[in-house]
Amino acid sequence: MVSPQPLTPHFRDELKHLKERLLVMAGAAEEQVRDAMRALVDRDHALAERVLTGDGVINQLHIEIDERCFQLLALHQPMATDLRVVVSAVKINSDLERVGDFAINIAEATLRYLQHPSVKPLIDIPRMADIAQGMLRDALDAYVRQDTVLAQEVLDRDDSVDRLKDQVFHELMGFMCTDQVVAQPALDLLLISRHLERIGDHATNIAEEAIFIVSGLDVRHHGQEGS
Amino acid sequence: MVSPQPLTPHFRDELKHLKERLLVMAGAAEEQVRDAMRALVDRDHALAERVLTGDGVINQLHIEIDERCFQLLALHQPMATDLRVVVSAVKINSDLERVGDFAINIAEATLRYLQHPSVKPLIDIPRMADIAQGMLRDALDAYVRQDTVLAQEVLDRDDSVDRLKDQVFHELMGFMCTDQVVAQPALDLLLISRHLERIGDHATNIAEEAIFIVSGLDVRHHGQEGS
Repeated sequence: MVSPQPLTPHFRDELKHLKERLLVMAGAAEEQVRDAMRALVDRDHALAERVLTGDGVINQLHIEIDERCFQLLALHQPMATDLRVVVSAVKINSDLERVGDFAINIAEATLRYLQHPSVKPLIDIPRMADIAQGMLRDALDAYVRQDTVLAQEVLDRDDSVDRLKDQVFHELMGFMCTDQVVAQPALDLLLISRHLERIGDHATNIAEEAIFIVSGLDVRHHGQEGS
Repeated sequence: MVSPQPLTPHFRDELKHLKERLLVMAGAAEEQVRDAMRALVDRDHALAERVLTGDGVINQLHIEIDERCFQLLALHQPMATDLRVVVSAVKINSDLERVGDFAINIAEATLRYLQHPSVKPLIDIPRMADIAQGMLRDALDAYVRQDTVLAQEVLDRDDSVDRLKDQVFHELMGFMCTDQVVAQPALDLLLISRHLERIGDHATNIAEEAIFIVSGLDVRHHGQEGS
């Protein structure tokens, strides 16, 4: 075992910059989700199309942040909490990239959905989106500020998303089984609700990382499973 | 910047052991997927139930491997390719845990599916499962043996999984729109095909890591996006 390297002011700056870049990436991913949902609610075909090609920034940030983590590990060899922060950044980076992909999946389903008249007023699905986006924002904040209380709140909110998803599932299954004309658009709404559930799961992963950094406590795989 | 630490035989052993544990985890995840698919094809209710509670080993390995990577980074401070191998292990570990979760999702959909008579003979979905499982096995092999040719083959196979998923989607939509009695079971088959597609995506992620370790070449975000 080697002794810990003294942490230089340069390393502190780099770590701060890494967190800022993750916040930028989270903002970009969240914007894609928000646009995809607005396209669905406002029946805005052009906006859904823009989401499909709007992931360039996220993909660039994904590669940049990964490289940044790698450089931090190679050049500064951080220890203890600092090491956890960098390793967590690698994982959070993957989670955020996946959120960006789900925004595209939502936009794809939206474009199919818009080929049909509305199946039903959209209430639960926008609510799911609001909760999932709030979870994502707060999970990132909890990571950056090392705030375990906020992280725990994010974990608690995941249950609401899951409950809404089950509600949407049963309601849409009812539509699909009684009126075959709405089978396709109802299915697309159902897929969208699954994508939102997954976004909530990724926010949960990030919150778990935030707790792990501070407490060293692994809160994964206790009680209900993430996905 | 500090000089690279000399790599001790102890570090080599640890790295070898880390890869072995990832292979064990991959085997466990693959077994869960295989059992979930067998439960679907053989209409084996009890086997699907066993999959639901069969993720204990995967969850333990997930935590153990994460901790192992962390220790390797903290104690040995590996550089260059060795550092890439460890950081990739962190990501692959997450990918494999996610595969285990999808096996459970498949088993859940299977249990709902088995409440109804068969919708159709299952041909494309088991084929998707075979390809996705083969991709997973080969992606891990490519990572462990640092074999970029095999990794590239895995990337190429992802297109077949996506094509089969589209085929299944259109066929099942046809069923759902013409016969509302089969809407629910057809939907569950459709969800299963999506879970299999995601397993293929995780195998793709692993193969991309394998290529990145050897070549330093980032093959992500070129052409079609993973999800």
